[in-house]
Amino acid sequence: MKGRMMQVPLLTSDILKNAMQRYPQQQVVSRTNEGTIHRYSYADAYRRSCQLANVLARLGVQRGDRVATLAWNNYRHLELYYGISGYGAVVHTLNARLFAEQLHYIINHAEDGYIFVDAPFVPLLEEVREQIPCVRGFIVNCDAADMPETSLAPLYCYETLLAAENDQFEWPRLEATDASGLCYTSGTTGNPKGVLYDHHSSVLHAMMSGGSQYLDFSERTCVMPVVPMYHVCAWGVPFSAPLYGAKLVLPGPSTDGASLQELIEGESVDKAYAVPTVWLGLHNYLEASGKKIDSLKLVGVGGAASPRALVKLYAERYNVYWMGIWGMTETSPLATAAIPTPQLEQLDPEARYDLQATAGRAMFGVEIGIFDANDDRVPHDGESRGSLRVRGPWVLSSYFKDEGNDNFADGWFDTGDVAVINPEGYLKIVDRSKDVIKSGGEWISSVDLENAALNYEAVNEACVIGARHLKWDERPIMLVTLKQDREYDESELRAALEGRVAKWWMPDAIIVVDELPHTGTGKLRKVELRQQYAEFLINSGS
Amino acid sequence: MKGRMMQVPLLTSDILKNAMQRYPQQQVVSRTNEGTIHRYSYADAYRRSCQLANVLARLGVQRGDRVATLAWNNYRHLELYYGISGYGAVVHTLNARLFAEQLHYIINHAEDGYIFVDAPFVPLLEEVREQIPCVRGFIVNCDAADMPETSLAPLYCYETLLAAENDQFEWPRLEATDASGLCYTSGTTGNPKGVLYDHHSSVLHAMMSGGSQYLDFSERTCVMPVVPMYHVCAWGVPFSAPLYGAKLVLPGPSTDGASLQELIEGESVDKAYAVPTVWLGLHNYLEASGKKIDSLKLVGVGGAASPRALVKLYAERYNVYWMGIWGMTETSPLATAAIPTPQLEQLDPEARYDLQATAGRAMFGVEIGIFDANDDRVPHDGESRGSLRVRGPWVLSSYFKDEGNDNFADGWFDTGDVAVINPEGYLKIVDRSKDVIKSGGEWISSVDLENAALNYEAVNEACVIGARHLKWDERPIMLVTLKQDREYDESELRAALEGRVAKWWMPDAIIVVDELPHTGTGKLRKVELRQQYAEFLINSGS
Repeated sequence: MKGRMMQVPLLTSDILKNAMQRYPQQQVVSRTNEGTIHRYSYADAYRRSCQLANVLARLGVQRGDRVATLAWNNYRHLELYYGISGYGAVVHTLNARLFAEQLHYIINHAEDGYIFVDAPFVPLLEEVREQIPCVRGFIVNCDAADMPETSLAPLYCYETLLAAENDQFEWPRLEATDASGLCYTSGTTGNPKGVLYDHHSSVLHAMMSGGSQYLDFSERTCVMPVVPMYHVCAWGVPFSAPLYGAKLVLPGPSTDGASLQELIEGESVDKAYAVPTVWLGLHNYLEASGKKIDSLKLVGVGGAASPRALVKLYAERYNVYWMGIWGMTETSPLATAAIPTPQLEQLDPEARYDLQATAGRAMFGVEIGIFDANDDRVPHDGESRGSLRVRGPWVLSSYFKDEGNDNFADGWFDTGDVAVINPEGYLKIVDRSKDVIKSGGEWISSVDLENAALNYEAVNEACVIGARHLKWDERPIMLVTLKQDREYDESELRAALEGRVAKWWMPDAIIVVDELPHTGTGKLRKVELRQQYAEFLINSGS
Repeated sequence: MKGRMMQVPLLTSDILKNAMQRYPQQQVVSRTNEGTIHRYSYADAYRRSCQLANVLARLGVQRGDRVATLAWNNYRHLELYYGISGYGAVVHTLNARLFAEQLHYIINHAEDGYIFVDAPFVPLLEEVREQIPCVRGFIVNCDAADMPETSLAPLYCYETLLAAENDQFEWPRLEATDASGLCYTSGTTGNPKGVLYDHHSSVLHAMMSGGSQYLDFSERTCVMPVVPMYHVCAWGVPFSAPLYGAKLVLPGPSTDGASLQELIEGESVDKAYAVPTVWLGLHNYLEASGKKIDSLKLVGVGGAASPRALVKLYAERYNVYWMGIWGMTETSPLATAAIPTPQLEQLDPEARYDLQATAGRAMFGVEIGIFDANDDRVPHDGESRGSLRVRGPWVLSSYFKDEGNDNFADGWFDTGDVAVINPEGYLKIVDRSKDVIKSGGEWISSVDLENAALNYEAVNEACVIGARHLKWDERPIMLVTLKQDREYDESELRAALEGRVAKWWMPDAIIVVDELPHTGTGKLRKVELRQQYAEFLINSGS
């Protein structure tokens, strides 16, 4: 028997329309690419998104067409999220940190018809222009006066196009399953793969992740997504913040400690989201400058494991709750979070930090499970490791153009992560399946070793990879970068590792390097390092 | 172009499963029908709901079958919400305040196969047993020791049935559009009509109404729905509270001031929901007893217009925020609410009370509009009146068995209410379309007159209806009940009305009565009064 309720799909355009009606005066604050502060309201954002939709009609964009963006976190990018998806096209966020060959691969794969580009990224596109014949036009996200000199053509100015259009638009009543967004994974191996979101998944994700089980937004929240809008949709905050009326602070190109501190204090930001290295950078700046971040109450941290030392530091020095989270491009992206619960607050601080440093628990709508090599369930006992799988209405069912479909099994998406889950449901990512070091048939977690190393104060960042070993097949080696103002002594680092990891996990070599390579999203580029150091132990006669 | 996301329907069983995983220790506190306090956890509720689903299988209940409940707000009723709908059957909540002829009409119309009944309602069913041959069995919601003497047959004991079953159940993966619940409108005219909810509408409603735009639940909330689970699903709180982990206090059969005060203080309730008369009763009790309700921060009030005097009283005497809301059985039921916003807090108190006494603003997912007799939109100017229409994914699209389908137009549901909406979106129900008094071609709002009368302290309750008038067609007459301890003088009441309503709205007669008739859901039974007093003015020679 079927219910008798209206089948009214909720669309991304409904989110901004709702914000315009309920929170017309709520502010969107952006740091522009020129470094100035831009400030307007959700009502303004709505009107300009309507103008933008009229621009798309004038450019001849059709429903379902992919329209790309290559932009920092700022108000025009926000308008693009809504204007493009609300119009019925697909907003394809290009990752600004991609290498040229990945960029033109992705643009061609997506068949992008137009690209809306922030001026600083124009040179990136010039480099690949000849390889992307599908692109019919480039719109530079700036005023007419700021238009750069460029060989890109056909070329348009964002503000000139908008100024010519009406600020009313009748948003089409699309279907819930119509595609709304496209984002490619920044894979460290193989070609990037596209994740194609739809309106149903985007709106459900915003409704649930903006609620008290996760980001916990209301009109009283001031939120700053440092995590980029060109990657994992800035955790969906461009949708969830307007849905619940939070003030939105978009930090533009500047994610250094000084720039973030200025925005946090200036705008009274109380929640902010980024990868761990950003928070390390902010801390270093605060230490050096003596400046404050008193308004900040919570940082959400994903993209890499949470270094426990930073969790503790943020709690004890800044009174900031460090909320470990986990998600992927493939999961819209939010899935699990270690939110501040009444139970956590009652714990001894050290026990609480342990849980904050996990990826937390699955929110309603997301189911997680760990599986062994035989596809059997592994118990949630806090000890047993398994391949992490996830399912739910905002998890992808297949990649765009059906690539990489070996990641799916029995209705689950296989994340490629190895994880443990404790009896309370707290998830801990132990490693990427491919980063686990296989030593004599046993697994060594590179992530655990890296976190343990951060307990030695002289270490700035640590990276552990497997190097070939004649007897054990693979053995761990550790690469570290150092803090400038600290004395380093390898034996002290080894002492810091002892007791924190099993004896047989101890790296066969520890190598100090000047810098470590990162992907466009701040992750360690281990593939590259594994190639470089593959024979290190053999060559050094270990 | 279609997105590529998992089409995973969210089901009511997922809500309680999520609560069992995330909030296993969170409490559900019930006042039993015997007056004692019962206390258990969401984990307990989950296990017993599994047992209940196994009971349904043993009883031969099929997917889509309607299974009725006739029960107060208590833990067994909570288990029935989940056990029946999660099993794939339809939980049909029978209104305990119905008259016998409505009751057997509804049971037959729904074709209920089983009825789960609280012991106090057994006599009600005995009265109609011969008229409801479709019912294959009656389960009394009690322990074996408490089974009542009854002629009802076949008869089962709830606890005996549960005790025989396993506490694990594999919830079926139903479709989002499968029916989950059935509730009949308590129409004051004509036969009741059925609203058939589905899993999609129930879960979306819980996700959104439990968020910061409406009920604003988290693990830190302790919520008491006084509004009955047998009517408008207790505002969906049995779904939204477990979804967000709120402590749930179910007041059972006792909604008098003393019982509610005891639960509020004893359980530290901070949010509670009921019709205005309940809050009047609580206030009267607090005045008489000198007792406190210090934990209470907010009352949500719907089902009838909010008397502004009570809004002010609750703010100034009890420091409780009065949140006017609006919804209907047909809207799942929550649609609009005057939540406490930062903007409201900054208003002058008297201006804030005005807005709190409205029905508030539509939450995301609900669209409201007012229309004139030509189906044209009426402006949202705070002055213009129109027929209120509503649409959204938790609004019905047609009644069960297609009755009353003249309430639908252009994808909207016509509520039968007359309303104004102000430029900020605040909705004010002016009257039921059929309760408006048509005097000389102009409309007089019975509700406005009733609210104005409550400004005179001696008035306990006021009811305004139209009586036939030779010159003006209809003129208002006011029926009032009085407080026992106050002096009443009609000229003082008239003085209280003056300045609050237009001169020509002044009632042609004010009649003191001992009591006023109410519907099963606490609304004034105006149809009855209109018949009784139809010729009052003509007979009295006015």
